[in-house]
Amino acid sequence: MMGTFPVSDEVTQVPIELAGRPAVLVEPKSAARAGTILYFHGGSFSLGSPQTAMCLTAELVRRTSVRAISFDYRLAPEHPFPAGIEDCLAAYRSLLDDGVDPASVVFAGDSAGGGLTVTTSLSARDAGLPLPAALIAFSPGLDHTRSGATMITKEGVDPFFTLGGMGHTGAMYLAGQNPDHPLLAPAVHADLCGFPPLLLQVGTNELLLDDSVRLAARARDAGVDVILDITADVPHVFQVFTGTLDEADYALDRAALFVAQHLAK
Amino acid sequence: MMGTFPVSDEVTQVPIELAGRPAVLVEPKSAARAGTILYFHGGSFSLGSPQTAMCLTAELVRRTSVRAISFDYRLAPEHPFPAGIEDCLAAYRSLLDDGVDPASVVFAGDSAGGGLTVTTSLSARDAGLPLPAALIAFSPGLDHTRSGATMITKEGVDPFFTLGGMGHTGAMYLAGQNPDHPLLAPAVHADLCGFPPLLLQVGTNELLLDDSVRLAARARDAGVDVILDITADVPHVFQVFTGTLDEADYALDRAALFVAQHLAK
Repeated sequence: MMGTFPVSDEVTQVPIELAGRPAVLVEPKSAARAGTILYFHGGSFSLGSPQTAMCLTAELVRRTSVRAISFDYRLAPEHPFPAGIEDCLAAYRSLLDDGVDPASVVFAGDSAGGGLTVTTSLSARDAGLPLPAALIAFSPGLDHTRSGATMITKEGVDPFFTLGGMGHTGAMYLAGQNPDHPLLAPAVHADLCGFPPLLLQVGTNELLLDDSVRLAARARDAGVDVILDITADVPHVFQVFTGTLDEADYALDRAALFVAQHLAK
Repeated sequence: MMGTFPVSDEVTQVPIELAGRPAVLVEPKSAARAGTILYFHGGSFSLGSPQTAMCLTAELVRRTSVRAISFDYRLAPEHPFPAGIEDCLAAYRSLLDDGVDPASVVFAGDSAGGGLTVTTSLSARDAGLPLPAALIAFSPGLDHTRSGATMITKEGVDPFFTLGGMGHTGAMYLAGQNPDHPLLAPAVHADLCGFPPLLLQVGTNELLLDDSVRLAARARDAGVDVILDITADVPHVFQVFTGTLDEADYALDRAALFVAQHLAK
C-alpha cells in the first residue's frame, strides 16, 4: 500500500540534503510556526522513502504549521542494523550543529520509522546529545525479538503482517546480529530515563500492538510522560486513511495537539 | 485540598435537581455547543460535592463550550456501595428519559468520580441502556481490592494517599461487602465489551496509577478505544493546578479535544 495515499496540497516539498543523505523539506504554504518535525518513514527497515510516508508527514505539517524534514536513511539488506539508526542520529546531530534548538525538534515516524524515533533518541542520549522535545510514533516496531503476546494473538487479525513475513524482513535488518539489544528491542531492553514525552498511537488489529504497550510501560517506569493512544479495530498505520476514516483524522489531530503542546514549552 | 481551587468565571452555575438529587448545571457564558458532560466529583465515595470539583468541571466546560451537569450522588458511610452508582445511573437514565441522545453525553469524573464513569457505564449496559459517547477519568479509583503494584511501589511517593488511609475510606464505602466485584474493582474484574472510547489521565506519583494501567489493558483486550495518558512526576488529579502548572493545562486541553472528537461523531 506504500506511496498510494494522497498528499495534502497545503504543503510544499523541496529535496534537500541532510548529513550527506537525501531528505525532503516539507513546509506549510501558510505561515509556519517555529519548530522542526524530523520524520522517519516506515518500511520494515528495508523499504520505503520520504515519499511513501509523505501523506503522514504532510498531514502533520498541515495540522501543526510546523515544518518537517523527512529523512532518507539507509536500508537493509544492503545496510543492516545499525546503519539506519546511525544515519538518523547523524541527521539530528547535523540539525543541532546548524544551531537548531533541540527543544524545537520533534521526532515522528511510522512503523519502522516509529521505532527510529526511539532508537535515535537512545543513541543521541548515549552520544551525550540533548534530546528532542517529544517523540511521536505511529504503530512503531520496537522489538526484533518479536516477543510481544500480540505477535501470536493478532495473527490472522492483522491484515498486513504475519509473524513469518516480519521474520523475513527482520532477518535482512538483523543480518545475523542478536536482537536482544536495546536498539533492536527497545520495548524489551531500553532504559528510557530522561526521555521526552512520548505519544504512541497504535491499532488493536496489529501484531505490533504489544510493542507500544511494553514501551509505554517502560516509559512509565522511567518517569517519562507517555500517552498510549489505542484505536480499536484499525490496522497498522491507520492514520494514512486521513480524509476517509474519522479515526485517522482524530488521531492526527491528537498528534498535532501533542506537537503544539511540546513545542510550546 | 478540596474546594480550594479557583473556578473559571467564563461559566455560569445553576443548582438543579436530577433524579431526585441535587446537581449543578454548568454552562459556558459564550455560545454553547451541543452535548452534555455528566460530571462525577471525587472524594473517596465519602467526601466532596459538585463544588469541590467545580474547578475541573468548569475547565472542561470552558475548553469545550459543552454544558456540564455535576451530580451530587449519595456518600458513605451513610450510603455505602452501591448507593452512589445507583444514583449516577438514575441521573443518566433521567437524562435519557428527558430525550437526551446518549451519543451527545460524555461521562467525566475525578478520583472516585473517575471510577463512577466506568461503573455507571457498566450498570447502564447491564440495565440495557445505550452507553454515552465517551468517558473521561482523571486519576480514577478502579479497584477496591487495592491490588495494583503501585499501591506498594508509590507509597511515600504519592503526596496525598497512603494505603492505610485508602483502607479507611474504602471500608466506609464497602461496609463489609466483598471488593471482588466488577463494580468495586473494575480494573480487575470488569468486562468492558461495547464500551465507548475512554480517556484515562493519571500521574506517575500515584498509588492509583495501576488502576488506570490495568483498566486500559482490559479496554484494549475488549476492543475499546483507550488513551492511557500518563504525566510524570505529578500527583493525584493534577489537573486542578490549571493556570499554574503547564501539565495541568495541557492535560485539560487533551481532554477537551477528546470531548470534541467524540461528540462530533
